[in-house]
Amino acid sequence: MNAERNEGESAPRGPKTITVPLGERSYDIVIGPGLIDEAGTRIKNVLPHARVAIVTDENVARLHLDRLRIALDSEGIDHNAIVLPAGEKTKSYGSLEQVVEAIIEGRFERGDIVLAFGGGVIGDVAGFASAIVRRGMALVQMPTSLLAQVDSSVGGKTGINSPQGKNLVGAFHQPSLVLADTALLDTLLPREFAAGYAEVVKYGLIDRPDFFEWLDENHREIFAGGTARIDAIAAACEAKAEVVARDEMEEASRALLNLGHTFGHALEKVCRYDAARLVHGEGVAIGVCLAHRFCAHLGLAPDEDARRIEIHLSAVGLPTRIQDIPGEEPKVDDLLDAIAQDKKVSRGALTFILTRGIGKAYVENGVDPQTVRGFLEQELSQ
Amino acid sequence: MNAERNEGESAPRGPKTITVPLGERSYDIVIGPGLIDEAGTRIKNVLPHARVAIVTDENVARLHLDRLRIALDSEGIDHNAIVLPAGEKTKSYGSLEQVVEAIIEGRFERGDIVLAFGGGVIGDVAGFASAIVRRGMALVQMPTSLLAQVDSSVGGKTGINSPQGKNLVGAFHQPSLVLADTALLDTLLPREFAAGYAEVVKYGLIDRPDFFEWLDENHREIFAGGTARIDAIAAACEAKAEVVARDEMEEASRALLNLGHTFGHALEKVCRYDAARLVHGEGVAIGVCLAHRFCAHLGLAPDEDARRIEIHLSAVGLPTRIQDIPGEEPKVDDLLDAIAQDKKVSRGALTFILTRGIGKAYVENGVDPQTVRGFLEQELSQ
Repeated sequence: MNAERNEGESAPRGPKTITVPLGERSYDIVIGPGLIDEAGTRIKNVLPHARVAIVTDENVARLHLDRLRIALDSEGIDHNAIVLPAGEKTKSYGSLEQVVEAIIEGRFERGDIVLAFGGGVIGDVAGFASAIVRRGMALVQMPTSLLAQVDSSVGGKTGINSPQGKNLVGAFHQPSLVLADTALLDTLLPREFAAGYAEVVKYGLIDRPDFFEWLDENHREIFAGGTARIDAIAAACEAKAEVVARDEMEEASRALLNLGHTFGHALEKVCRYDAARLVHGEGVAIGVCLAHRFCAHLGLAPDEDARRIEIHLSAVGLPTRIQDIPGEEPKVDDLLDAIAQDKKVSRGALTFILTRGIGKAYVENGVDPQTVRGFLEQELSQ
Repeated sequence: MNAERNEGESAPRGPKTITVPLGERSYDIVIGPGLIDEAGTRIKNVLPHARVAIVTDENVARLHLDRLRIALDSEGIDHNAIVLPAGEKTKSYGSLEQVVEAIIEGRFERGDIVLAFGGGVIGDVAGFASAIVRRGMALVQMPTSLLAQVDSSVGGKTGINSPQGKNLVGAFHQPSLVLADTALLDTLLPREFAAGYAEVVKYGLIDRPDFFEWLDENHREIFAGGTARIDAIAAACEAKAEVVARDEMEEASRALLNLGHTFGHALEKVCRYDAARLVHGEGVAIGVCLAHRFCAHLGLAPDEDARRIEIHLSAVGLPTRIQDIPGEEPKVDDLLDAIAQDKKVSRGALTFILTRGIGKAYVENGVDPQTVRGFLEQELSQ
């Protein structure tokens, strides 16, 4: 379904390209080192006459914005930059309005591009702005974190947080192009890289047990950089592209991508999105462990699989238990409230991604909140 | 293309139904007196298990909300109501956030309905909220003004105003059903009814000269109520449905619906959306007159057609000249600034809907701002 091909003839390993097949809205994800310097050329190939409104955060701007501007200038592409504070708090109504008004102020038009240049937060808020300015502008994603490269930049989900919960406000708006420059990941803190890695592991856990095995054998190389890292990112993007192509608007099977996310979002919420305590990928790491232990608790999946995942995630420095979160221990009532308000709720019964073991995840719409309560009480008593 | 059919066997004239043919997103517009009392039944037929978040304004709530609640209760449909201040200022970021948060607070889910119960402002802000809560809920439009019944409730355009201009932020989000209760129009002020009538006339001016002739002969009956009014609304909805089906996302011919709107929006903006001076339909009335006089000025259309339109609109109490707006006379520079910021601008040249006469409108992308300036200076000097 997805074309994966190597580009270039001289380099032994050029960028990899994955196509997300969505008919008229199909687009390429290009993955490789140094793509930032080719941004002007590659954008011009896809949208020849567009101006570009770059949306980024202070950290990414300091490290990489000049290089991106040079790449756009070299192709004569007119551009503005809107620089936001870094961090989850930027996924707010206030930041969205700020970005939207700056784009309008810059007189960008419907055929012009919003270029989301940053991690998941920037991709979500800039993507949402591109969906709603003049009822829809073009979007190019240039993810600079591992998490954004393997997850949030692909598939068209955009949005902001409500005070009542994460990602409750947003739009489906597919990008026209995703450029994932893997060399930019060298400037990430180890903790940020590990957090993104939790989403890579997730694809193995959903339905690719061989990919999980490969990660288990190659995680040192992936963390060290080089071709294994590019291969891991490409495999993750290919997995996501397949799921998105099957169910673009999350009417059914796309929900599998939420494996570990119901628990993870609830943990992020009770930690008040305090990145010092827990970032999204760490919530997902604990979340996938909880999901597997929950299924073992229900007798659905082998204990052994949950343990293998814990060992693997611990080895790369990720948390695997609620108690691994620094600070005050979350309360079961607060976690259950947060789970009930999460968007994956349908008519009272809870929707969870459950599993029969590694690579055997499925959507279950009828989970009883009392069962979840009993499980969480047991987790927190250990 | 559009099925128009009469319902009911006993009544000599039951409601009329127009289908907007958009494949999976097709929906019916039902037009007739007393539909509010059938709202529960008709909504249940389309979306059987949904809860309903009613969004309305203080005026409509006072006049009609109890009746709507009774109709929903009679079918056992669970509902909440969110009541906003009446007026264009409600199309703001603040009101949008208020509606979105109230919907989330009410624990409405993706399959539930936002019911926009009001005029164009309510339809736009509630429709936009339905597009972005949980990345998209169902939407039912129950337009209560003539303008909303013949224009804004049909076709999926939703949005709010930016401080920089009208409707610059929004989404395309089609309703699942439109219920236009023509009896509710009896509570409109004559000025409000006339404002909506300007949009009815517009459809004749775009490409239905026979409809304009019919309006010219029947406008007294339409203003008096009864079957001529229902026929006029149905004909307007049918005209709009055809345009929307041809070009849902306004990539080309849908722009024809903006006949008179570039001038009209600019006038609204320089009047700071002060309804005491100018409401949207009045802006459109002056706008279509300006568009026809502009084309006569350019030698494209006969002077005679512009005069016929002025006489017709004046007869129903609508303004036809910039000087008809009470208060300080708008300045040409301010009008040109507002036109340039309007969303129908492409790469410096202005896009206008021009015309060769009644029923002969077309999209022109290359209008020189200096020509517009010269015309406006002449208009204001008379």
